[in-house]
Amino acid sequence: MTTFTPTDRTTLKRLPKRGEYDRAAVFKILDEAFICHVGFVADDKPVVIPTSYARIDDDLYIHGSAASRMLRSLEQGLDVCMTVTLIDGLVLARSAFHHSINYRSVLVFGTAHLVDDPAEKLRALQVFTDHVVPGRWQDVRWPDEGELKATLVLKLSMVEVSAKIRTGPPIDDEEDYKLPVWAGVIPLHLVAEAPVNDERLPSEIDPPEYARNYARPGAKV
Amino acid sequence: MTTFTPTDRTTLKRLPKRGEYDRAAVFKILDEAFICHVGFVADDKPVVIPTSYARIDDDLYIHGSAASRMLRSLEQGLDVCMTVTLIDGLVLARSAFHHSINYRSVLVFGTAHLVDDPAEKLRALQVFTDHVVPGRWQDVRWPDEGELKATLVLKLSMVEVSAKIRTGPPIDDEEDYKLPVWAGVIPLHLVAEAPVNDERLPSEIDPPEYARNYARPGAKV
Repeated sequence: MTTFTPTDRTTLKRLPKRGEYDRAAVFKILDEAFICHVGFVADDKPVVIPTSYARIDDDLYIHGSAASRMLRSLEQGLDVCMTVTLIDGLVLARSAFHHSINYRSVLVFGTAHLVDDPAEKLRALQVFTDHVVPGRWQDVRWPDEGELKATLVLKLSMVEVSAKIRTGPPIDDEEDYKLPVWAGVIPLHLVAEAPVNDERLPSEIDPPEYARNYARPGAKV
Repeated sequence: MTTFTPTDRTTLKRLPKRGEYDRAAVFKILDEAFICHVGFVADDKPVVIPTSYARIDDDLYIHGSAASRMLRSLEQGLDVCMTVTLIDGLVLARSAFHHSINYRSVLVFGTAHLVDDPAEKLRALQVFTDHVVPGRWQDVRWPDEGELKATLVLKLSMVEVSAKIRTGPPIDDEEDYKLPVWAGVIPLHLVAEAPVNDERLPSEIDPPEYARNYARPGAKV
């Protein structure tokens, strides 16, 4: 399947032309970003926590300490909404009303489940590490048995998924185009500065290429 | 009061030293960021939507079209969790396990209510516009009556609030410091590129200062 099938809650009621169900388009957003906001319900109230994530095919993985409140709740298989948002620019229109933001976001609804299989867990941690810093896994000490046990990994299969994308210039009311007001887009993006060596790093160890020229895959540099 | 009073759900169970309840520290994060992720419960399931926001004193405002699903639900006064996250850097440790992210986040729990008073609504829209682009409001056409009616504004009073902050270098296990692995921090921040004029902009109108040198208040440039 090259697209996700819209469901009631992934069908955009407002501005449906911004909706996107194409699998490749969704994956591109998920692969460029690395922080999601996970929503879940605790004591009938919503809770939203920022965390990083990894994608393997149609599955999203999040992880954390076994002590974290979110992951303790999720352990039993909990309904979540994982939202990933990239901000591309500020859209300045001639009227306050038509100001907007260029962005790309993905919402994934579903039930997250604990990963028990140690091999799948280790693979998820590998992809997780390499998703945030491509190439990092092969350089570092891998988790030992105790660390693996202390890390909960949760999987959310991507079935109910939608992306929402806004691009382009402001759209003003026709009569506002004559106003003497600057209008346009201020592009925004996340950039990396030069890496900062840890104070205890021996002087003969230089930052690797992935730290010296860090950029998100697919991101405009 | 210079601090928010921790409650059961704003007390960090894990890594409590990262918790922050100081009002000025919370406001600084909220003023530097401009996107939040709002979580609410719809049909017993969590939904998380990215949106921009404004702060006036101890109140947070979000807005949107009267047609939006989130704001329709919120209109009756709905429990929300508003989460604001700033990503400051990637923390590369010598072990996979101790990799981390430097970030500043704020969670606000409470019940959002519709703003009915037209004057408060207009003021919120002004602060909203100037929060995203300081100085913009005075330059643009303000909302007319129809636009004001089409815009729902919701207010969330900040009572149950916590911030969480991680800064600094990786913290490795003592025996890992001898590993020949680069470790340190890759600083990240959001930058603005040169503004892009709208195609229909008359050539004599130049981008204003706030578009030419856009930066978030308090952000490291």
